[in-house]
Amino acid sequence: MTVNVLFAHNEAQWEIYKDPLEQAIRAVGVDAVLSRDMPPEEVDYIVYAPSSWLQDFTPYTRAKAVLNLWAGVEAITGNETLKIPLARMVDFGLKQGMMEWVTGHVLRHHLYIDFYLHHQDGDWLPKVPPLARDRRVTILGLGELGSACAEALAGLGFPVSGWSRSPKQIDGITCHHGDEGLKQALKKADILVLLLPFTAATENVLNAESIGWMPEGAVVINPGRGQLIDDEALLNALGTGQIGHATLDVFRVEPLPADHRYWGHPSVTVTPHIASETRPDTASEVIAENIRRGEAGEPFLHLVDRDLGY
Amino acid sequence: MTVNVLFAHNEAQWEIYKDPLEQAIRAVGVDAVLSRDMPPEEVDYIVYAPSSWLQDFTPYTRAKAVLNLWAGVEAITGNETLKIPLARMVDFGLKQGMMEWVTGHVLRHHLYIDFYLHHQDGDWLPKVPPLARDRRVTILGLGELGSACAEALAGLGFPVSGWSRSPKQIDGITCHHGDEGLKQALKKADILVLLLPFTAATENVLNAESIGWMPEGAVVINPGRGQLIDDEALLNALGTGQIGHATLDVFRVEPLPADHRYWGHPSVTVTPHIASETRPDTASEVIAENIRRGEAGEPFLHLVDRDLGY
Repeated sequence: MTVNVLFAHNEAQWEIYKDPLEQAIRAVGVDAVLSRDMPPEEVDYIVYAPSSWLQDFTPYTRAKAVLNLWAGVEAITGNETLKIPLARMVDFGLKQGMMEWVTGHVLRHHLYIDFYLHHQDGDWLPKVPPLARDRRVTILGLGELGSACAEALAGLGFPVSGWSRSPKQIDGITCHHGDEGLKQALKKADILVLLLPFTAATENVLNAESIGWMPEGAVVINPGRGQLIDDEALLNALGTGQIGHATLDVFRVEPLPADHRYWGHPSVTVTPHIASETRPDTASEVIAENIRRGEAGEPFLHLVDRDLGY
Repeated sequence: MTVNVLFAHNEAQWEIYKDPLEQAIRAVGVDAVLSRDMPPEEVDYIVYAPSSWLQDFTPYTRAKAVLNLWAGVEAITGNETLKIPLARMVDFGLKQGMMEWVTGHVLRHHLYIDFYLHHQDGDWLPKVPPLARDRRVTILGLGELGSACAEALAGLGFPVSGWSRSPKQIDGITCHHGDEGLKQALKKADILVLLLPFTAATENVLNAESIGWMPEGAVVINPGRGQLIDDEALLNALGTGQIGHATLDVFRVEPLPADHRYWGHPSVTVTPHIASETRPDTASEVIAENIRRGEAGEPFLHLVDRDLGY
């Protein structure tokens, strides 16, 4: 039997995903038709971008699952018309890319790389960093991405602490949870990495009060979600030096407007939401595996708990 | 019996090393007197900086070993008056610091961090790097430092090749050796790290011919020795784009003269010999252990083969 897969994303992405997706689904032994346009009542699976035209799931009466193309699902979890299982993207490429980006920027700050890039005019100015063992890194969020980053950084010698809503245990990482745990984790954050999902409970988790718990001159790295940060509080803390530098990859509004105060700020580095990209090859394999599971009656991978919001 | 240890380095370093060295020697159970100034014929061990005033070892008739304060020994291996064992510094801090610096700069280039640092003026310009598995790193030199860097980079997902004079085997690293091996290793060097010792055989290992073997636009990172690079050939290759960028930490003359063409070159990053610093605490433990071994009649650690030059 042929399975109908709707690709609910724009034409440009369709061009990118069409071949790897067809190939990956064929590779798991499923006979499928993929299209951006098919009668809703005939759709079996929806490969989904929350930013797409598809916002009303009511007519998709036969569909078995919505398979998100990326990790963040906050734009869809509140959708009342969605009654079928929703799976997040948990992609090797996504996780690996995030780990590389976070490790690179932690090392950039740890090693004072910006200082050297700004001193190329003939002055020999040694500024020796401490060893990683003397630079404490804290990661808020210990999901797939946060744990991968925590483990990579601990492997390089950094003392890594993590914080999550519910208790977790990860070898080699000091794990905190709950409100009191957040304060403990931030108190030792020489470098802070934000990898929480965006939910009502995490909005503005970095605010004037919580920034005040951090060591003076700490570095903030945000590849998570723009809404995790109270921007006004961060800009104030950058002004007083309470925060030494912020490297921000995600923002409340993207692209970040050209007149935003983060652009050109001497203590801010803006990157254009590139910390982690879903890779079509590896992402297609994850989607194909979930379609195979759906057809075989096996449980889907990476299902979203819509009450928790991730 | 009291052991006499001469500290053959300058006053500033004496101030830094005095306490950690005394403490480390006491910790291994040896009763020692340390000084910058003692009669040569009474010296048992020489803690040594090759740049120091001590260049004639003839009067040190009783000394059992010269314990170098850092890894590079090229300034002393040719010294004909040195007849006793010479040990290099192989320090946890030195190795760890080098691994951190190399990993940080490999990731900096891999992730296009400079590109983003140069685009902070309001333009949202995503430039997504490949995953590490698609960025080949080659390390010339697989000694203590080179192997540590190779293993760290392989652990992050980079395909790492290494090259050494004699055959080596390291798990997870593609090892090459000899003349033909050098060409093979350079052919796949998207990012090249130089960690060879400076000897007659390694001088100008990176020259016009060997640069020509590398992929176009490759990155060169040199935390090893300035003499490994034919500077004129590198500057030419930077001009043609054969080499995309060079990050250089070591130079034939240090500090690098302010009018050197490397300074301010748009495709060169100069760092002031900070890739790896000997850390007094960890280095003192290595020296103390060798003194303990000398007193116990055990073989010294990290002895230099003076014919090979390292």
